Amino acid sequence: MPTLQQTISRVEPLRRSAVDEAKARQAQLTKPLGSMGLLEEIGSQLAGIAGICPPPVPQRPAIAVFAGDHGVHAQGVTPWPQEVTAQMVANLASGGAVVNALARQVGATVTVVDVGVATELPDAPNLVRRKVRRGTADLTAGPAMTRHDALTALEVGIEVAALLVGSGADLLVTGDMGIANTTASAALVAALTGREPADVTGRGTGIDDPTLARKTAAIERALERLDRSDPMTVLAEVGGFEHAALAGFLLGGAARRVPVVLDGVIAVSAALVASALCPAAVDFWVAGHVSVEPGARVALDHLGLTPALDLGLRLGEGSGAALAVPIVQSAARLLNEVATFDSAGVTGK
Amino acid sequence: MPTLQQTISRVEPLRRSAVDEAKARQAQLTKPLGSMGLLEEIGSQLAGIAGICPPPVPQRPAIAVFAGDHGVHAQGVTPWPQEVTAQMVANLASGGAVVNALARQVGATVTVVDVGVATELPDAPNLVRRKVRRGTADLTAGPAMTRHDALTALEVGIEVAALLVGSGADLLVTGDMGIANTTASAALVAALTGREPADVTGRGTGIDDPTLARKTAAIERALERLDRSDPMTVLAEVGGFEHAALAGFLLGGAARRVPVVLDGVIAVSAALVASALCPAAVDFWVAGHVSVEPGARVALDHLGLTPALDLGLRLGEGSGAALAVPIVQSAARLLNEVATFDSAGVTGK
Repeated sequence: MPTLQQTISRVEPLRRSAVDEAKARQAQLTKPLGSMGLLEEIGSQLAGIAGICPPPVPQRPAIAVFAGDHGVHAQGVTPWPQEVTAQMVANLASGGAVVNALARQVGATVTVVDVGVATELPDAPNLVRRKVRRGTADLTAGPAMTRHDALTALEVGIEVAALLVGSGADLLVTGDMGIANTTASAALVAALTGREPADVTGRGTGIDDPTLARKTAAIERALERLDRSDPMTVLAEVGGFEHAALAGFLLGGAARRVPVVLDGVIAVSAALVASALCPAAVDFWVAGHVSVEPGARVALDHLGLTPALDLGLRLGEGSGAALAVPIVQSAARLLNEVATFDSAGVTGK
Repeated sequence: MPTLQQTISRVEPLRRSAVDEAKARQAQLTKPLGSMGLLEEIGSQLAGIAGICPPPVPQRPAIAVFAGDHGVHAQGVTPWPQEVTAQMVANLASGGAVVNALARQVGATVTVVDVGVATELPDAPNLVRRKVRRGTADLTAGPAMTRHDALTALEVGIEVAALLVGSGADLLVTGDMGIANTTASAALVAALTGREPADVTGRGTGIDDPTLARKTAAIERALERLDRSDPMTVLAEVGGFEHAALAGFLLGGAARRVPVVLDGVIAVSAALVASALCPAAVDFWVAGHVSVEPGARVALDHLGLTPALDLGLRLGEGSGAALAVPIVQSAARLLNEVATFDSAGVTGK
C-alpha cells in the first residue's frame, strides 16, 4: 500500500481545461446561467477531477465508516457508555444503523473499519479489521496517540480508499463511529483554525450544560500543551484513530482522483488535518452537509467548502454525506443530459 | 372530476395517533433523539399523512410541470422572449430540460401540462393539453384572469393530481414553466402575506437593476387596485394559469392524502393561495427547497414550512423539489428500517 508521502505526491491539481469546459457548458444548457447554484459548481469540480467534460455520473458510491474509541471518555464528556461504539459497529455491520438505511436509499455500499475500537469485535462480512489500539489515551493527560500509531491509522484510511476504488467505487463517502469523538473533533478544529475551544465545541449527541462545560474544559487543557505547527503532531495529540483514518481516506481519494463526500464535524475536522498535509487535496472533496456542531461550520469555512445540505443533523456515521450523494450525481448528470439552447431550439435572452 | 369545493371538503387533518407513534419511534431508533433533524419531522408528517407508522416509503414520485404565459411580459419584466415558454415545453416533453435529468436521477416521471401557453403546442407523449387561455392578460392593466378561468385552471390541477395518483404516484412534485412567472409569484406573495412588493420581488432568471425596477413597479401597480380579502380574487387578478393549476394540484394531493413536494417561488406562491382556501392542506406539503427569489423565503415562513434544501437554485421547473425527493424517501425509510436500541442490543445513554 502507498505510504502517506507517496499518496501526497500523487495528488495533482484539478484539470483546468475540463473545469473551464464545464463552466462554458453551463452557459449553453437550457437554463439561465447560474440558476442551478451549487450544482453548477459541483459539476465543474467533478469535471476537473475526472479531467473531462462532461464528467461521468458517479454510479457506485461507497461509504466507509471508521470506528474508534476515545480515552477522553473518562472525563465525562458524554452520557453514552463507551461500549456503545462496539454495539453500534455491530449494528452497522448488520445493516440496522441510520447510515445503512440511507445507503440503501442512494445505492451505496457500507464498509465498516475498526481502527481503534476498545473491545474485540465479532466477524462480519462488511467489517474490515485494522485495529491500531484499543482506543486512544485520554487527551487531557497526554498524547491521544503516538505519532507512529496516528500514521498507521492514517495509512489504513489510504488503504481503504484504494480497496474501495479498486473494487469499483467512483464516489467515496466518509463515515464515523466513536463515542466521544466530537470532543476530539472540536480539539482538532480549535487547534487547526486557531479558534477558541468554546467557539467550536458543541453538544454532540445532545449533552447538557455541565457536560458541555467538562467537554470544553477538557479540550482547553489539551490545547494548552499543544505544538500546533505540525499537523501530524496535532492529529496524534488530540485526534482519534477514526480521524487519522479519515484524513488518509480523504488523501487516498484525492490521489486516485475520486471525489470524496464529507460528512459532519468528525469528517471536516479530519479534513483540516488532511488539507494541512496536502492543500491540493481539498479540490477533490465535496461538503455533504453542515452539522449543527459549531466546529463543522468553522472547519468548512476554513477549508473554503460550501455544504450541500443543512438539515439540522448531528448523528455522524456518514448520514449527511450519504444524503448528499444524489446531489453530487445530479450535478454530473446535468452536464451530461441537459439539452443546449442550440440543440433544443430554445431562444436565448 | 371533483370540484374545488368537493376537494377542499375531502381534506382531513393528519392522523394524530400515527404522528405520535412516529415521534415515539424516533426515540427508540439507534440514534440520539433529534439527531436526524428535519428528517425526523418529515418522517412524522409522512406517518400522519399515511395514517400509519412506519409510513410507506414513496416509490413512485411524479413531477407535474404546469406551463403558462403571462401578459405582464409586455411590461419588460424579463429579457427572455415569451416564445421561450413554448420552446421549453417542447424541451421538457422531449426529456432535455434540467428537471428531466433530475427526474431520471430520482426515478420520477415528468408530466407537462399546458394550462395557458400563448401558442399551440405539438403533441408529445407526456404533454397533457388543458389550455384555458393563450396566456394571462397584463396584470398591470386589469385582472390577469377571469375568476371563471382561474377556477378552471385550478380544477385542472386537481384533475392532474387525481390522474397521477390514479396511475400509481405516491409522491407528487410541483413544477412550472412560464416566462415572467416570477412577477406573478411576487405579486401573489405580496398580496397574501402583506409584505411590500420590493421585499418579495427578485431577479428571477437574473435580471438587471432597470428590469427589476420595472418588475417591482408593475407589481405595485397591480396591488393598488387589489381586494385582498378573497384568495380566488387575488389569484385571478395577479396570478398565472400555472399558479392556479398548482394551487389545485396541492389541494388535490392533500385530498387524496398524498404528500406533495413544493419547488421554488412559483410553487410556494401558489401554496399561499391553496392554504388560504384550505388551511388544513399545508400539513400535506413538504418544502423541497428555498430558492434565492426573496418571495420564496417569505412565503415559506408564512406557511410555517422548513425547506429541505438551500442550494442557491433559481430555475424552477420543479428542479429543487426533484432534488428533495430522496430526502423525503429517506425520512420514511428511517422509520421503516433502522433498528431500535432493544432490537440491536445497543445501550442507551
